[in-house]
Amino acid sequence: MLRVSHSSRPFLRIRLTAALLKRPYSVVTDAPIPKKSKVWDNVHEAVADVKSGDVVLSGGFGLCGIPETLIKALAKKPDIKNLTAVSNNAGAKESGLVRLIKSKQLDKVMISYLGGNKFLEHAYLNGDIGIELVPQGTLIARLNAHAAGYPVIYTPTGAGTKVETGEIPIQYNPGGGANGVKIHGNKKEAREFNGRRYVMEPAISGDVAFVHAWKADEVGNLVFRYTAHNYNGVMARNAKLTIVEAEQIVPAGSLSPNAIHVPGIFVDRIVQATEAKPIEVLALAKNKEEQTAHSVQGTEHTDNHEAAPNVHSDWRHRVAARAAKEIKDGFYVNLGVGVPTLVPEHLPPDVKVWMESENGILGMGPYPTEDQADPDIINAGKETTTLLPGASVFDSIESFNMIRGGHLDVTVLGAMEVSQAGDIANFMIPGKLVKGIGGAMDLVSNPDQTKVIVTMQHCSKDGTPKIVQQCSLPLTGPRAVSMIVTDMAVFNVDREAGELHLVDIAEGVTMEELRAKTACDFHVPEHVGRF
Amino acid sequence: MLRVSHSSRPFLRIRLTAALLKRPYSVVTDAPIPKKSKVWDNVHEAVADVKSGDVVLSGGFGLCGIPETLIKALAKKPDIKNLTAVSNNAGAKESGLVRLIKSKQLDKVMISYLGGNKFLEHAYLNGDIGIELVPQGTLIARLNAHAAGYPVIYTPTGAGTKVETGEIPIQYNPGGGANGVKIHGNKKEAREFNGRRYVMEPAISGDVAFVHAWKADEVGNLVFRYTAHNYNGVMARNAKLTIVEAEQIVPAGSLSPNAIHVPGIFVDRIVQATEAKPIEVLALAKNKEEQTAHSVQGTEHTDNHEAAPNVHSDWRHRVAARAAKEIKDGFYVNLGVGVPTLVPEHLPPDVKVWMESENGILGMGPYPTEDQADPDIINAGKETTTLLPGASVFDSIESFNMIRGGHLDVTVLGAMEVSQAGDIANFMIPGKLVKGIGGAMDLVSNPDQTKVIVTMQHCSKDGTPKIVQQCSLPLTGPRAVSMIVTDMAVFNVDREAGELHLVDIAEGVTMEELRAKTACDFHVPEHVGRF
Repeated sequence: MLRVSHSSRPFLRIRLTAALLKRPYSVVTDAPIPKKSKVWDNVHEAVADVKSGDVVLSGGFGLCGIPETLIKALAKKPDIKNLTAVSNNAGAKESGLVRLIKSKQLDKVMISYLGGNKFLEHAYLNGDIGIELVPQGTLIARLNAHAAGYPVIYTPTGAGTKVETGEIPIQYNPGGGANGVKIHGNKKEAREFNGRRYVMEPAISGDVAFVHAWKADEVGNLVFRYTAHNYNGVMARNAKLTIVEAEQIVPAGSLSPNAIHVPGIFVDRIVQATEAKPIEVLALAKNKEEQTAHSVQGTEHTDNHEAAPNVHSDWRHRVAARAAKEIKDGFYVNLGVGVPTLVPEHLPPDVKVWMESENGILGMGPYPTEDQADPDIINAGKETTTLLPGASVFDSIESFNMIRGGHLDVTVLGAMEVSQAGDIANFMIPGKLVKGIGGAMDLVSNPDQTKVIVTMQHCSKDGTPKIVQQCSLPLTGPRAVSMIVTDMAVFNVDREAGELHLVDIAEGVTMEELRAKTACDFHVPEHVGRF
Repeated sequence: MLRVSHSSRPFLRIRLTAALLKRPYSVVTDAPIPKKSKVWDNVHEAVADVKSGDVVLSGGFGLCGIPETLIKALAKKPDIKNLTAVSNNAGAKESGLVRLIKSKQLDKVMISYLGGNKFLEHAYLNGDIGIELVPQGTLIARLNAHAAGYPVIYTPTGAGTKVETGEIPIQYNPGGGANGVKIHGNKKEAREFNGRRYVMEPAISGDVAFVHAWKADEVGNLVFRYTAHNYNGVMARNAKLTIVEAEQIVPAGSLSPNAIHVPGIFVDRIVQATEAKPIEVLALAKNKEEQTAHSVQGTEHTDNHEAAPNVHSDWRHRVAARAAKEIKDGFYVNLGVGVPTLVPEHLPPDVKVWMESENGILGMGPYPTEDQADPDIINAGKETTTLLPGASVFDSIESFNMIRGGHLDVTVLGAMEVSQAGDIANFMIPGKLVKGIGGAMDLVSNPDQTKVIVTMQHCSKDGTPKIVQQCSLPLTGPRAVSMIVTDMAVFNVDREAGELHLVDIAEGVTMEELRAKTACDFHVPEHVGRF
């Protein structure tokens, strides 16, 4: 049957002929394959093997790429309960995992961001449900670890924060926090490698995964559409029983073997997706002209008060314009919510950047026109967005490897407090509900490689300085910030020495005022700039 | 500029119209992007910043997907030396990294498989060069760890072996092993999690990566072709300076953002690939009819003596036929070299399997006909192969996550020794050169999830039993084997109790003979089968 030619020198060498380069995947032979189709006709039967007590993994980010058909089917089986759900969010309004919270099937959720999910918030504060908040990059990494056969990971994300110490309560006693904490957060081991601190995070394993795919072939190969990829691929690889809802179910051999996002080995059952795809936040450019005037946009959380563009927009734009001077043509940049999203407007015309959105875009474009809006192309603020020529879209693993690995040039973030050593606090106020960690801890986790610039007001509304000797608020990351831009001044941070160096002072601000409103010392060089 | 519609219930819901489903990536706007092209005209200038002492990562598996244009250019700069190269192999014959060994630019290589690279073998045995042998899945994982911002990984692969104890010498003293060892292997920390042993392996970071891509756009997005993907994507993500040679360089915006293997952020320089693509082992089916008679093939190393189909083919086929009975329709299977590759021939016509090849194929087909042979579609034995309808091709990270994560149903391997507890030894004989570890340690690293079946002769050529109480040879993995199929008998292994249970005894073999030729006790049930 077999002829083998080898060991003869020189090798057979194939010239890069046009024919070879253009050859499609017709090298697939017509030999028979396993007969077993993974396609199920009935979604209710497909989810019937979920058991009470199971850990259910659910793909999706915001409402993008959520397995709504499967979740809806599971919500119709109220006898299946005491579930733990793992997902980035827990849905919003009437869509997503919130269905299973309302049906009282969930005991606990592991999520990265709570956001505006009022129903979940209330259930949590009342002690009815547990929430384990996990940094977004750590959540996807812990899920991927199990899929890949690793028991734990060591990550810089969360080191030196309450994620390490386990001080964020998972569940309150019945009746709520006044009655005490029922389940405390998990304290993590930490360890230094090469002078940096890392926390050991356990892998997360799922019993069942719910996955939303664009295309699935009958043998389980999956392709996702744009930012609907997000967590779906990793969820599919993790669980004992992976159930996929697909928009299109196609015959084996009709997908290019070279462009499959999840190989069929990970998929057990496939059903037809029947639910419509919602747009959570429809953000639009007025028209084509305005759209191309600013070729990029930030990841603005439009439900964030700070982001409303008509409040104090002068100081906000001044700060954004100053931060924009730190950005060079061709930089890879991630922008946090609020003021950072104004930075692109202030870039000179010859400076264009690649904007990263942590849900899985590199090369995010401006807001879409009405006809371009697409539920599968959203930013980290869940708004509709577009892709620039040369953009790429990928899953959350790639996105957070990119972030944690320090491949971005700059991240610009808001903050509630920054210390003179560059400690940043921007994710929680004790005694108030934590809305989530999202990607913030990951974005500041590799400050030697990715410059962290904070943009904020110099003082809080009551006049309290936000630049301090030691943060009083829980940290997002220690010794992370390299530059602080406020409405009063610009500082470089010597993170090693724990010292601030004044760079610029705002027009009309005196050194005395600045000293009075800054709660720590700072060095003043011979020449101080104005902005 | 922005209209935002949110918080209104119900959401805007987009029906899955045909138009939306078929929309291409035209949502990309025509807004301007960074001007900087990453394309370099001159390969010699592109590699000129490699510095003596650098760690150079090189993509490729065997000769498939090697960055030959870049390697050849670097070999013309003999002043750049004392390099460490990291790659799966170090080339073969005149191609690949062996060029840099011959030019004396390499001090050390980190590889998973040496194979038939005689020049490297001689240099190693003479103490001229160091070789750090790393299990294939650990090599890719250590590289990916650095890219993703992890300092270490904990992997089951290599736990309880000389990889953990560091007993494989990296470099001999000048003149060779008789003069002693210059650089010993690295001893690893080990730790138990959930009752299993894992070794801590450090991340590997590269100064420079050489990458071979099929298509690159001007801003660095990469697409690989079939099994030429292998290590190339991870190498690209890892290094401080990533240089890509591409078969086709295309404008930004011409690749689908949804099907990019490596986002442009990881790529610094792109040159035109100009070297031909060699086929290392041209393995062919005689004709179309013979090809489809057996729809799959193993990953036969054709340079392995055991694999020659005309030697002792009777016992080999008897063993393969018995092992085939353990395989069910639809199984995901990885087959080692030698006898295991004969298993598919013995599957009943109604049993079809998905064959995994650890270089990155799921759904490997039969050998190609002459017109189908393609240098970018090879198996783990470096032979040309084909893809079945429903096949997928992926990189080494996906492949070894799949293996280590225990997603395969069965792996069938040869062995030199197996103990009554299921310890397997099949990668080295002390005092002889280690040809490599390859994927063997990974394939036996998750035996609770992936059943390990050993096929072998009951005794070695001199009559020494190969089934023993305790292995005397260095282990590939402890307590890994669940079934042993030899020319004399079939045993189930109780890995927990450390006991063998006889299942079948070969026609013509007596219990006395079997006991005499088995160097440990075994349980005999009431009913023993024949085969």
